[in-house]
Amino acid sequence: MKFYDCKTAPSPRRVRVFLAEKGIELETVQVDLGSGEQFSDAFRKLNPECVVPVLELDNGVCISEVLAICHYLEELHPEPALLGTTPEESAAVLMWNGKVEQLGLWAMAEAFRNATKGLTNNALPGPDPYPQIPELADRGRKRVGRFFERLDGQLAVNEYVAGDFYSMADISAMVVVDFAAWIKISIPDSAENLARWYASVSKRPSAAA
Amino acid sequence: MKFYDCKTAPSPRRVRVFLAEKGIELETVQVDLGSGEQFSDAFRKLNPECVVPVLELDNGVCISEVLAICHYLEELHPEPALLGTTPEESAAVLMWNGKVEQLGLWAMAEAFRNATKGLTNNALPGPDPYPQIPELADRGRKRVGRFFERLDGQLAVNEYVAGDFYSMADISAMVVVDFAAWIKISIPDSAENLARWYASVSKRPSAAA
Repeated sequence: MKFYDCKTAPSPRRVRVFLAEKGIELETVQVDLGSGEQFSDAFRKLNPECVVPVLELDNGVCISEVLAICHYLEELHPEPALLGTTPEESAAVLMWNGKVEQLGLWAMAEAFRNATKGLTNNALPGPDPYPQIPELADRGRKRVGRFFERLDGQLAVNEYVAGDFYSMADISAMVVVDFAAWIKISIPDSAENLARWYASVSKRPSAAA
Repeated sequence: MKFYDCKTAPSPRRVRVFLAEKGIELETVQVDLGSGEQFSDAFRKLNPECVVPVLELDNGVCISEVLAICHYLEELHPEPALLGTTPEESAAVLMWNGKVEQLGLWAMAEAFRNATKGLTNNALPGPDPYPQIPELADRGRKRVGRFFERLDGQLAVNEYVAGDFYSMADISAMVVVDFAAWIKISIPDSAENLARWYASVSKRPSAAA
Protein backbone atom coordinates (compact mmCIF):
# COMPACT_ATOMS: atom_id res chain seq x y z
CA MET A 1 0.00 0.00 0.00
CA LYS A 2 1.07 3.56 -0.69
CA PHE A 3 -0.28 6.62 1.11
CA TYR A 4 -0.40 9.93 -0.81
CA ASP A 5 -0.12 12.66 1.75
CA CYS A 6 0.63 16.35 2.08
CA LYS A 7 2.34 17.04 5.38
CA THR A 8 0.86 20.54 5.72
CA ALA A 9 -2.79 19.85 4.79
CA PRO A 10 -5.67 19.17 7.22
CA SER A 11 -7.49 16.38 5.35
CA PRO A 12 -4.58 13.93 5.05
CA ARG A 13 -3.65 14.72 8.65
CA ARG A 14 -6.87 13.00 9.72
CA VAL A 15 -5.48 9.81 8.18
CA ARG A 16 -2.01 10.38 9.62
CA VAL A 17 -3.38 10.66 13.16
CA PHE A 18 -5.54 7.56 12.52
CA LEU A 19 -2.46 5.62 11.38
CA ALA A 20 -0.48 6.81 14.40
CA GLU A 21 -3.21 5.70 16.82
CA LYS A 22 -3.12 2.24 15.25
CA GLY A 23 0.65 2.08 14.97
CA ILE A 24 0.47 1.43 11.22
CA GLU A 25 3.40 2.53 9.09
CA LEU A 26 2.85 2.94 5.36
CA GLU A 27 5.04 3.87 2.44
CA THR A 28 4.20 7.56 2.07
CA VAL A 29 4.44 9.88 -0.92
CA GLN A 30 4.30 13.64 -0.33
CA VAL A 31 2.20 15.49 -2.92
CA ASP A 32 3.29 19.11 -3.31
CA LEU A 33 0.00 21.01 -3.23
CA GLY A 34 1.86 24.33 -3.28
CA SER A 35 3.23 23.71 -6.77
CA GLY A 36 -0.03 22.15 -8.00
CA GLU A 37 1.20 18.56 -8.20
CA GLN A 38 -2.35 17.39 -7.44
CA PHE A 39 -3.36 18.66 -10.91
CA SER A 40 -0.69 16.64 -12.75
CA ASP A 41 -1.73 13.86 -15.13
CA ALA A 42 0.02 11.34 -12.89
CA PHE A 43 -1.98 12.34 -9.82
CA ARG A 44 -5.29 12.63 -11.68
CA LYS A 45 -4.98 8.94 -12.46
CA LEU A 46 -4.96 8.25 -8.71
CA ASN A 47 -7.80 10.64 -7.92
CA PRO A 48 -9.56 12.68 -10.63
CA GLU A 49 -10.84 14.98 -7.86
CA CYS A 50 -7.22 16.15 -7.46
CA VAL A 51 -7.21 16.02 -3.68
CA VAL A 52 -5.21 14.20 -1.04
CA PRO A 53 -5.28 11.83 0.79
CA VAL A 54 -5.27 8.76 -1.46
CA LEU A 55 -4.48 5.18 -0.47
CA GLU A 56 -3.19 3.07 -3.37
CA LEU A 57 -3.58 -0.66 -2.79
CA ASP A 58 -1.09 -3.22 -4.06
CA ASN A 59 -3.52 -4.22 -6.81
CA GLY A 60 -3.55 -0.64 -8.09
CA VAL A 61 -7.00 0.26 -6.74
CA CYS A 62 -7.04 3.79 -5.31
CA ILE A 63 -9.16 4.83 -2.35
CA SER A 64 -9.79 8.51 -1.79
CA GLU A 65 -12.07 10.20 0.78
CA VAL A 66 -10.82 10.17 4.37
CA LEU A 67 -13.62 8.03 5.81
CA ALA A 68 -13.26 5.37 3.10
CA ILE A 69 -9.51 5.13 3.75
CA CYS A 70 -9.96 4.94 7.53
CA HIS A 71 -12.74 2.34 7.28
CA TYR A 72 -10.53 0.19 5.05
CA LEU A 73 -7.62 0.44 7.50
CA GLU A 74 -9.92 -0.35 10.43
CA GLU A 75 -11.08 -3.55 8.72
CA LEU A 76 -7.46 -4.63 8.20
CA HIS A 77 -6.27 -3.48 11.63
CA PRO A 78 -9.26 -3.56 14.01
CA GLU A 79 -7.28 -2.68 17.14
CA PRO A 80 -7.47 -0.17 18.69
CA ALA A 81 -10.99 0.46 17.35
CA LEU A 82 -11.50 4.03 16.12
CA LEU A 83 -14.86 3.55 14.40
CA GLY A 84 -16.76 1.98 17.30
CA THR A 85 -17.13 -1.64 18.41
CA THR A 86 -20.94 -2.04 18.48
CA PRO A 87 -23.61 -0.95 15.97
CA GLU A 88 -24.62 1.89 18.30
CA GLU A 89 -21.04 3.07 18.85
CA SER A 90 -20.30 2.95 15.12
CA ALA A 91 -23.44 4.98 14.44
CA ALA A 92 -22.33 7.60 16.98
CA VAL A 93 -18.85 7.83 15.41
CA LEU A 94 -20.20 8.12 11.86
CA MET A 95 -22.85 10.63 12.94
CA TRP A 96 -20.37 12.84 14.75
CA ASN A 97 -17.72 12.48 12.07
CA GLY A 98 -20.35 13.64 9.58
CA LYS A 99 -21.41 16.58 11.76
CA VAL A 100 -17.77 17.59 12.27
CA GLU A 101 -17.23 17.57 8.49
CA GLN A 102 -20.45 19.43 7.66
CA LEU A 103 -20.46 21.99 10.45
CA GLY A 104 -16.74 22.28 11.08
CA LEU A 105 -14.41 21.18 8.33
CA TRP A 106 -16.32 22.37 5.27
CA ALA A 107 -17.12 25.64 7.08
CA MET A 108 -13.41 26.13 7.80
CA ALA A 109 -12.53 25.34 4.19
CA GLU A 110 -15.12 27.92 3.12
CA ALA A 111 -13.60 30.56 5.43
CA PHE A 112 -10.03 29.74 4.42
CA ARG A 113 -10.32 29.20 0.67
CA ASN A 114 -12.43 32.29 0.03
CA ALA A 115 -10.01 34.63 1.79
CA THR A 116 -6.57 33.29 0.89
CA LYS A 117 -4.30 34.92 -1.66
CA GLY A 118 -3.16 32.36 -4.17
CA LEU A 119 -6.56 30.65 -4.19
CA THR A 120 -8.33 33.47 -6.09
CA ASN A 121 -9.77 31.00 -8.58
CA ASN A 122 -9.65 27.92 -6.40
CA ALA A 123 -12.40 28.57 -3.90
CA LEU A 124 -13.21 24.88 -4.01
CA PRO A 125 -10.78 21.98 -4.03
CA GLY A 126 -10.60 20.07 -7.30
CA PRO A 127 -9.67 20.63 -10.92
CA ASP A 128 -12.31 23.26 -11.80
CA PRO A 129 -11.64 26.97 -11.27
CA TYR A 130 -14.24 28.66 -9.04
CA PRO A 131 -13.66 32.30 -8.07
CA GLN A 132 -13.62 33.33 -4.43
CA ILE A 133 -16.83 34.77 -2.94
CA PRO A 134 -15.92 37.15 -0.07
CA GLU A 135 -19.33 36.66 1.63
CA LEU A 136 -18.47 32.98 1.97
CA ALA A 137 -15.31 33.77 3.89
CA ASP A 138 -17.38 35.73 6.44
CA ARG A 139 -20.07 33.07 6.56
CA GLY A 140 -17.48 30.35 7.08
CA ARG A 141 -15.99 32.18 10.08
CA LYS A 142 -19.42 32.54 11.66
CA ARG A 143 -20.17 28.88 11.08
CA VAL A 144 -16.90 27.76 12.69
CA GLY A 145 -17.78 29.82 15.78
CA ARG A 146 -21.20 28.17 15.94
CA PHE A 147 -19.59 24.75 15.50
CA PHE A 148 -17.33 25.37 18.48
CA GLU A 149 -20.40 26.19 20.60
CA ARG A 150 -22.15 23.05 19.39
CA LEU A 151 -19.14 20.89 20.14
CA ASP A 152 -18.75 22.48 23.57
CA GLY A 153 -22.32 21.43 24.38
CA GLN A 154 -21.67 17.87 23.29
CA LEU A 155 -18.44 17.74 25.33
CA ALA A 156 -20.25 19.05 28.41
CA VAL A 157 -21.95 15.66 28.72
CA ASN A 158 -19.41 13.37 26.99
CA GLU A 159 -15.71 12.86 27.54
CA TYR A 160 -15.10 12.49 23.81
CA VAL A 161 -16.96 13.69 20.73
CA ALA A 162 -18.90 10.48 20.03
CA GLY A 163 -19.31 9.34 23.65
CA ASP A 164 -17.06 8.01 26.39
CA PHE A 165 -14.44 6.60 24.01
CA TYR A 166 -11.79 8.18 21.74
CA SER A 167 -12.64 7.77 18.06
CA MET A 168 -12.23 9.07 14.55
CA ALA A 169 -14.74 11.81 15.41
CA ASP A 170 -12.14 13.20 17.86
CA ILE A 171 -9.44 13.09 15.21
CA SER A 172 -11.62 15.00 12.74
CA ALA A 173 -12.64 17.59 15.34
CA MET A 174 -9.06 18.12 16.55
CA VAL A 175 -7.99 18.76 12.96
CA VAL A 176 -10.73 21.39 12.61
CA VAL A 177 -9.54 23.21 15.75
CA ASP A 178 -5.95 23.27 14.49
CA PHE A 179 -7.05 24.28 10.98
CA ALA A 180 -9.07 27.16 12.47
CA ALA A 181 -5.89 28.55 14.02
CA TRP A 182 -4.60 29.19 10.47
CA ILE A 183 -7.11 32.04 10.19
CA LYS A 184 -6.86 33.05 13.85
CA ILE A 185 -10.07 31.46 15.07
CA SER A 186 -9.46 29.98 18.49
CA ILE A 187 -11.57 28.17 21.05
CA PRO A 188 -13.68 30.85 22.78
CA ASP A 189 -13.03 31.41 26.49
CA SER A 190 -16.59 30.36 27.28
CA ALA A 191 -16.11 26.91 25.70
CA GLU A 192 -14.54 25.26 28.73
CA ASN A 193 -15.55 21.72 27.79
CA LEU A 194 -14.12 22.08 24.31
CA ALA A 195 -10.88 23.45 25.80
CA ARG A 196 -10.65 20.54 28.28
CA TRP A 197 -11.22 17.99 25.50
CA TYR A 198 -8.77 19.72 23.12
CA ALA A 199 -6.02 19.72 25.75
CA SER A 200 -6.60 16.00 26.28
CA VAL A 201 -6.64 14.85 22.64
CA SER A 202 -3.72 17.14 21.72
CA LYS A 203 -1.55 15.49 24.37
CA ARG A 204 -1.84 12.08 22.69
CA PRO A 205 1.34 11.17 20.78
CA SER A 206 -0.74 10.75 17.59
CA ALA A 207 -1.53 14.48 17.57
CA ALA A 208 2.01 15.17 16.35
CA ALA A 209 1.26 13.34 13.09
CA MET B 1 -37.18 2.23 16.47
CA LYS B 2 -38.81 5.32 15.03
CA PHE B 3 -37.85 6.92 11.73
CA TYR B 4 -38.30 10.69 11.38
CA ASP B 5 -38.86 11.36 7.71
CA CYS B 6 -40.15 14.02 5.34
CA LYS B 7 -41.79 12.40 2.35
CA THR B 8 -40.83 15.23 -0.03
CA ALA B 9 -37.17 15.77 0.95
CA PRO B 10 -34.12 14.24 -0.77
CA SER B 11 -31.99 13.36 2.28
CA PRO B 12 -34.51 11.13 4.09
CA ARG B 13 -35.37 9.56 0.73
CA ARG B 14 -31.88 8.04 0.72
CA VAL B 15 -32.85 6.16 3.88
CA ARG B 16 -36.30 5.27 2.54
CA VAL B 17 -34.80 3.64 -0.56
CA PHE B 18 -32.23 1.86 1.64
CA LEU B 19 -35.04 0.49 3.84
CA ALA B 20 -37.05 -0.60 0.79
CA GLU B 21 -34.06 -2.48 -0.66
CA LYS B 22 -33.70 -4.36 2.62
CA GLY B 23 -37.42 -4.89 3.12
CA ILE B 24 -37.33 -3.21 6.53
CA GLU B 25 -40.48 -1.52 7.76
CA LEU B 26 -40.19 1.04 10.56
CA GLU B 27 -42.62 3.15 12.48
CA THR B 28 -42.36 6.44 10.62
CA VAL B 29 -43.09 10.00 11.71
CA GLN B 30 -43.49 12.70 9.06
CA VAL B 31 -41.80 15.99 9.98
CA ASP B 32 -43.45 18.96 8.25
CA LEU B 33 -40.47 20.93 6.94
CA GLY B 34 -42.82 23.33 5.14
CA SER B 35 -44.25 24.66 8.39
CA GLY B 36 -40.86 24.61 10.14
CA GLU B 37 -41.55 21.67 12.45
CA GLN B 38 -37.81 20.82 12.36
CA PHE B 39 -37.18 23.99 14.39
CA SER B 40 -39.60 23.03 17.18
CA ASP B 41 -38.28 22.35 20.67
CA ALA B 42 -39.52 18.76 20.40
CA PHE B 43 -37.54 18.08 17.22
CA ARG B 44 -34.40 19.89 18.42
CA LYS B 45 -34.21 17.33 21.21
CA LEU B 46 -33.94 14.61 18.56
CA ASN B 47 -31.45 16.50 16.39
CA PRO B 48 -30.15 19.96 17.33
CA GLU B 49 -29.08 20.38 13.68
CA CYS B 50 -32.82 20.56 12.84
CA VAL B 51 -32.62 18.28 9.82
CA VAL B 52 -34.20 14.97 8.86
CA PRO B 53 -33.70 12.03 8.74
CA VAL B 54 -33.34 10.87 12.34
CA LEU B 55 -33.55 7.31 13.65
CA GLU B 56 -34.66 7.10 17.28
CA LEU B 57 -33.70 3.83 18.96
CA ASP B 58 -35.83 2.14 21.59
CA ASN B 59 -33.41 3.30 24.30
CA GLY B 60 -33.96 6.91 23.26
CA VAL B 61 -30.63 7.37 21.47
CA CYS B 62 -31.04 9.38 18.27
CA ILE B 63 -28.96 8.82 15.16
CA SER B 64 -28.87 11.53 12.54
CA GLU B 65 -26.74 11.73 9.36
CA VAL B 66 -27.80 9.45 6.51
CA LEU B 67 -24.64 7.33 6.46
CA ALA B 68 -24.74 6.71 10.22
CA ILE B 69 -28.37 5.58 10.01
CA CYS B 70 -27.72 3.30 7.02
CA HIS B 71 -24.59 1.78 8.60
CA TYR B 72 -26.57 1.01 11.75
CA LEU B 73 -29.36 -0.62 9.76
CA GLU B 74 -26.82 -2.62 7.73
CA GLU B 75 -25.30 -4.03 10.92
CA LEU B 76 -28.74 -5.12 12.15
CA HIS B 77 -29.91 -6.37 8.73
CA PRO B 78 -26.84 -7.37 6.70
CA GLU B 79 -28.77 -8.79 3.73
CA PRO B 80 -28.87 -7.64 1.01
CA ALA B 81 -25.57 -5.83 1.57
CA LEU B 82 -25.65 -2.18 0.47
CA LEU B 83 -22.34 -1.05 1.99
CA GLY B 84 -20.09 -3.71 0.43
CA THR B 85 -19.13 -7.19 1.61
CA THR B 86 -15.31 -6.98 1.61
CA PRO B 87 -12.97 -4.25 2.91
CA GLU B 88 -12.28 -3.17 -0.69
CA GLU B 89 -15.96 -3.09 -1.66
CA SER B 90 -16.85 -1.15 1.49
CA ALA B 91 -14.10 1.35 0.72
CA ALA B 92 -15.45 1.81 -2.81
CA VAL B 93 -18.99 2.38 -1.50
CA LEU B 94 -17.87 4.87 1.15
CA MET B 95 -15.59 6.65 -1.31
CA TRP B 96 -18.29 7.02 -3.95
CA ASN B 97 -20.97 7.87 -1.42
CA GLY B 98 -18.66 10.64 -0.21
CA LYS B 99 -17.95 11.89 -3.73
CA VAL B 100 -21.67 11.86 -4.55
CA GLU B 101 -22.38 13.94 -1.45
CA GLN B 102 -19.54 16.41 -1.99
CA LEU B 103 -19.77 16.84 -5.75
CA GLY B 104 -23.46 16.14 -6.26
CA LEU B 105 -25.73 16.51 -3.26
CA TRP B 106 -24.15 19.53 -1.57
CA ALA B 107 -23.78 21.23 -4.96
CA MET B 108 -27.47 20.63 -5.66
CA ALA B 109 -28.41 21.97 -2.22
CA GLU B 110 -26.27 25.05 -2.97
CA ALA B 111 -28.08 25.60 -6.29
CA PHE B 112 -31.53 24.99 -4.83
CA ARG B 113 -31.34 26.75 -1.49
CA ASN B 114 -29.73 29.93 -2.85
CA ALA B 115 -32.40 30.42 -5.51
CA THR B 116 -35.64 29.35 -3.85
CA LYS B 117 -38.24 31.81 -2.60
CA GLY B 118 -39.12 31.02 0.98
CA LEU B 119 -35.49 30.17 1.81
CA THR B 120 -34.26 33.80 1.65
CA ASN B 121 -32.59 33.49 5.04
CA ASN B 122 -32.15 29.74 5.05
CA ALA B 123 -29.41 29.22 2.51
CA LEU B 124 -28.05 26.44 4.70
CA PRO B 125 -30.01 23.77 6.51
CA GLY B 126 -30.06 24.10 10.28
CA PRO B 127 -31.24 26.50 12.96
CA ASP B 128 -29.08 29.52 12.03
CA PRO B 129 -30.25 32.08 9.47
CA TYR B 130 -27.84 32.54 6.56
CA PRO B 131 -28.91 34.81 3.68
CA GLN B 132 -28.93 33.51 0.12
CA ILE B 133 -25.91 34.28 -2.08
CA PRO B 134 -27.03 34.41 -5.74
CA GLU B 135 -23.52 33.54 -7.02
CA LEU B 136 -23.78 30.25 -5.12
CA ALA B 137 -26.93 29.31 -7.00
CA ASP B 138 -25.06 29.71 -10.30
CA ARG B 139 -22.00 27.90 -8.99
CA GLY B 140 -24.14 25.06 -7.73
CA ARG B 141 -25.74 24.56 -11.14
CA LYS B 142 -22.32 24.44 -12.80
CA ARG B 143 -21.06 21.95 -10.25
CA VAL B 144 -24.03 19.64 -10.75
CA GLY B 145 -23.32 19.63 -14.50
CA ARG B 146 -19.71 18.71 -13.83
CA PHE B 147 -20.79 16.00 -11.40
CA PHE B 148 -22.98 14.43 -14.09
CA GLU B 149 -19.96 14.33 -16.44
CA ARG B 150 -17.82 12.77 -13.72
CA LEU B 151 -20.43 10.15 -12.93
CA ASP B 152 -20.89 9.39 -16.63
CA GLY B 153 -17.18 8.61 -16.87
CA GLN B 154 -17.34 6.28 -13.87
CA LEU B 155 -20.41 4.51 -15.30
CA ALA B 156 -18.68 4.06 -18.66
CA VAL B 157 -16.48 1.41 -17.03
CA ASN B 158 -18.73 0.19 -14.18
CA GLU B 159 -22.28 -1.08 -14.16
CA TYR B 160 -22.99 0.69 -10.87
CA VAL B 161 -21.49 3.72 -9.14
CA ALA B 162 -19.13 1.84 -6.80
CA GLY B 163 -18.38 -1.09 -9.14
CA ASP B 164 -20.29 -4.10 -10.47
CA PHE B 165 -22.75 -4.25 -7.58
CA TYR B 166 -25.72 -2.08 -6.53
CA SER B 167 -25.00 -0.13 -3.32
CA MET B 168 -25.75 2.88 -1.21
CA ALA B 169 -23.67 4.96 -3.62
CA ASP B 170 -26.31 4.27 -6.30
CA ILE B 171 -29.09 5.31 -3.94
CA SER B 172 -27.34 8.59 -3.14
CA ALA B 173 -26.60 9.31 -6.81
CA MET B 174 -30.16 8.50 -7.93
CA VAL B 175 -31.49 10.92 -5.33
CA VAL B 176 -29.19 13.66 -6.70
CA VAL B 177 -30.48 13.12 -10.25
CA ASP B 178 -34.11 13.36 -9.08
CA PHE B 179 -33.33 16.37 -6.86
CA ALA B 180 -31.70 18.11 -9.85
CA ALA B 181 -34.97 17.84 -11.76
CA TRP B 182 -36.52 20.22 -9.19
CA ILE B 183 -34.49 23.04 -10.71
CA LYS B 184 -34.70 21.70 -14.27
CA ILE B 185 -31.24 20.20 -14.49
CA SER B 186 -31.45 16.95 -16.40
CA ILE B 187 -28.96 14.33 -17.51
CA PRO B 188 -27.18 15.80 -20.57
CA ASP B 189 -27.75 14.00 -23.91
CA SER B 190 -24.04 13.24 -24.10
CA ALA B 191 -24.06 11.31 -20.80
CA GLU B 192 -25.24 7.99 -22.24
CA ASN B 193 -23.75 5.86 -19.48
CA LEU B 194 -25.38 7.95 -16.77
CA ALA B 195 -28.72 7.70 -18.63
CA ARG B 196 -28.39 3.90 -18.94
CA TRP B 197 -27.59 3.55 -15.24
CA TYR B 198 -30.36 5.94 -14.17
CA ALA B 199 -32.96 4.01 -16.19
CA SER B 200 -31.80 0.81 -14.51
CA VAL B 201 -31.78 2.01 -10.88
CA SER B 202 -35.05 3.93 -11.29
CA LYS B 203 -36.80 0.75 -12.40
CA ARG B 204 -36.09 -0.96 -9.08
CA PRO B 205 -39.19 -1.07 -6.84
CA SER B 206 -37.21 0.74 -4.11
CA ALA B 207 -37.00 3.87 -6.28
CA ALA B 208 -40.65 4.60 -5.52
CA ALA B 209 -39.79 5.11 -1.84
